[in-house]
Amino acid sequence: MVHFRSAREEDVSAIVKLLADDELGATRERYVEKLPIEYFEAFAEIELQRGNQIIVAVEDSSIIGCLQLTIIPGLARLGMKRAQIEAVRIDRAYRGEGIGEALFKEAICIAKSEECGLVQLTTDKQREDAHRFYDRLGFVASHEGMKLIF
Amino acid sequence: MVHFRSAREEDVSAIVKLLADDELGATRERYVEKLPIEYFEAFAEIELQRGNQIIVAVEDSSIIGCLQLTIIPGLARLGMKRAQIEAVRIDRAYRGEGIGEALFKEAICIAKSEECGLVQLTTDKQREDAHRFYDRLGFVASHEGMKLIF
Repeated sequence: MVHFRSAREEDVSAIVKLLADDELGATRERYVEKLPIEYFEAFAEIELQRGNQIIVAVEDSSIIGCLQLTIIPGLARLGMKRAQIEAVRIDRAYRGEGIGEALFKEAICIAKSEECGLVQLTTDKQREDAHRFYDRLGFVASHEGMKLIF
Repeated sequence: MVHFRSAREEDVSAIVKLLADDELGATRERYVEKLPIEYFEAFAEIELQRGNQIIVAVEDSSIIGCLQLTIIPGLARLGMKRAQIEAVRIDRAYRGEGIGEALFKEAICIAKSEECGLVQLTTDKQREDAHRFYDRLGFVASHEGMKLIF
């Protein structure tokens, strides 16, 4: 049985392992035995920010999926809050079992309970499988996702 | 002379006026004499969230532009922070004078000083002029911007 909960500091290593096990992530992360301190500092910063959390999917006390959910208040659309999703991963060994969908449903449920009017994410144009996954969940690719990388 | 600063509660009405004066925004906002309380509640929520602010462009004590800048810490990319921009507007009477560009440069400068590794935004695929503006600033449309609206 898979369950979902907010990530704790002791989950950081397992989450970084998931982030690194990905065509695009492999070049961006450093999953090594002694995990770089930057990951723990970043986790502490997430915990300090109201509305920001990583949600993990857990089976038999193993982390098999994750996503980051940030609730962003704003003035637009009559002061509507939006929920933003980043850094979605499901363990390769567990793909195709509906865990990603269940994890998203959990995130969407939290977003609704926090009175968000929408959930948004950007997905690399190279990730065609991901686009189909988000389409099925009801997401609409109405926007260009633009990045300025320093 | 235009200057830039973080928005205060007394700026909310002027910001909502800018948000409403837009083809897409016109149907989404309620800029009326007695501004709906939701806007003030939303502004208070923005102030409560670490890393979230609205930056305004001011000329002669009038608000002539705005954008929302949210610094989001995360684990991905070796614990990189990202800066997210939402709700960008320049007063129609001041367009074409480089104020949008200067406002973005201010936001990018803050993002760098907060040690963000990138700035991101999504822009409605209908807003072709906006795409050219972001292209000029160095943004790359590498991602699909997907929304699930409740």
